Amino acid sequence: MKKEEFKKAFEEKRQMVEDAIEKYLPPSDARPSLIHQAMRYSMKVGGKRLRPILLLASYELLPSSLDPLPACVAIESMHTYSLIHDDLPAMDNSDLRRGKPTCHKQFDEAMALLAGDALLTFSLWFLAESYKDSPKVAANLVRDLGEAGGSFKMIGGQVEDVLGERDGKMTPEKLNFIHENKTAALITAAITMGIRLADSSDDEKFKLAREIGYNVGMAFQVIDDILDATSDTETMGKTVRLDAADGKLTYVNLYGIEKSREIAADFSNKAIEACKKLTGKDESFLKDLILYMQNRIN
Amino acid sequence: MKKEEFKKAFEEKRQMVEDAIEKYLPPSDARPSLIHQAMRYSMKVGGKRLRPILLLASYELLPSSLDPLPACVAIESMHTYSLIHDDLPAMDNSDLRRGKPTCHKQFDEAMALLAGDALLTFSLWFLAESYKDSPKVAANLVRDLGEAGGSFKMIGGQVEDVLGERDGKMTPEKLNFIHENKTAALITAAITMGIRLADSSDDEKFKLAREIGYNVGMAFQVIDDILDATSDTETMGKTVRLDAADGKLTYVNLYGIEKSREIAADFSNKAIEACKKLTGKDESFLKDLILYMQNRIN
Repeated sequence: MKKEEFKKAFEEKRQMVEDAIEKYLPPSDARPSLIHQAMRYSMKVGGKRLRPILLLASYELLPSSLDPLPACVAIESMHTYSLIHDDLPAMDNSDLRRGKPTCHKQFDEAMALLAGDALLTFSLWFLAESYKDSPKVAANLVRDLGEAGGSFKMIGGQVEDVLGERDGKMTPEKLNFIHENKTAALITAAITMGIRLADSSDDEKFKLAREIGYNVGMAFQVIDDILDATSDTETMGKTVRLDAADGKLTYVNLYGIEKSREIAADFSNKAIEACKKLTGKDESFLKDLILYMQNRIN
Repeated sequence: MKKEEFKKAFEEKRQMVEDAIEKYLPPSDARPSLIHQAMRYSMKVGGKRLRPILLLASYELLPSSLDPLPACVAIESMHTYSLIHDDLPAMDNSDLRRGKPTCHKQFDEAMALLAGDALLTFSLWFLAESYKDSPKVAANLVRDLGEAGGSFKMIGGQVEDVLGERDGKMTPEKLNFIHENKTAALITAAITMGIRLADSSDDEKFKLAREIGYNVGMAFQVIDDILDATSDTETMGKTVRLDAADGKLTYVNLYGIEKSREIAADFSNKAIEACKKLTGKDESFLKDLILYMQNRIN
């Protein structure tokens, strides 16, 4: 796909996701309106919509007659709830996210807590509700998203992140655990949910979907570390914050920027290989998306 | 059923629920162990297990070959998460629950927030996982529990409760909204989930299940108000806290104890009538359970 074509396809998907969020979230005047305003505020405050777009890209790999957009809204709701709760005073105590007041700053702590709870509940309920006429698909989607968001995965990664910052004893092994669970698990769910919509009971295909997801997720996190380390530096690769001044262990702190780039590229390549195995085709929007994500740092 | 028989059957069910919680919750040594310790701490700190026992009672009304215990653990997890989050400093700021330190006192705020999130996620995921071989049942159970716990129902009731305390302008209409959603919705789910396990696609039966649940739930809340008002008084009915000293509007404050008793009995009777219509039988454990709950105030 040419760069222009890719950008157009990406933008179309992003717009579809925006429209679906607008359509499917509870209306802001539904009683009690304050909670629905808070849910919508945090869902609409921006973001790249990367997880739902990955889901759409995965969905295109296998034929399915089901509408993927409810699943897109569900995974974005799960992601957004985790951001709202992470921003709370008891956690990261962040006042701003994407340049706008965080949910508890815009509303208050009680409403942010409840809006997070409500988006989490909505995410899993909405899958069961939207796909009830294909109950096997519905149950599998809830299993994938619920597992990814649960205490062994996303929340587990967050727990070790909190504890690691607290006791200061971060190790490469812990860093991997955190990245695999806090970040890669939900991105893996984006890919497997796309495949689930094709009602794939083919274990080999599902295994490949997990492989794609894991590698895309890990690449994403390493790339994020690199962008964090270089974002306030004009020439990339010059400021390597090896001192971990903020107490965070990152790939960049552990391996330096050049090696981190190689690690990211390696994850991306593995994801693309698994993509080809799954579809039997060399080209797909997902492949281009993986390359696009990788190129953010090149 | 004789009183002794009922007590034995009740205790058997309660023990089944305790054992299922022990069996199905993530083990406390699973990584990260702190979150799993916190989840288990709050799940095992006590409680009457009323929602899972109601689910078992409802389950017995119609024949089913499915194991109801995973659904029992799911609904108790949903209930427990809501208590953990309600107790947080940003909400009720409670140090004790059932005589023991609340989750954020025993652990800390971050861990209590995450343990609540994890129990909520677990509750819906575990339904989809446990009943995956009966996917229609699985999807319907997630729909019932997710709807009951969502922003229109349980969380919505909690929101109006918080706002009502804040602005002090509580009305009977608001009180009803809070009780119907904060309390009765989850109790309704206990009854409908019991019926869903029989894979009931009979709309009339499901409608009756909702009717039972609504009336049991409302009776439960009115009875709770009465017990609250009389719990520190030796002779019931003497201390009517009409002043609403704690800023809470209750049935007792609105209607007095005698009238509240009548209201509770009326809800209980309606539930029992719907029970009979659903099963065609005069007797059931659920009927005895409703009478037992009613008799707590007589």
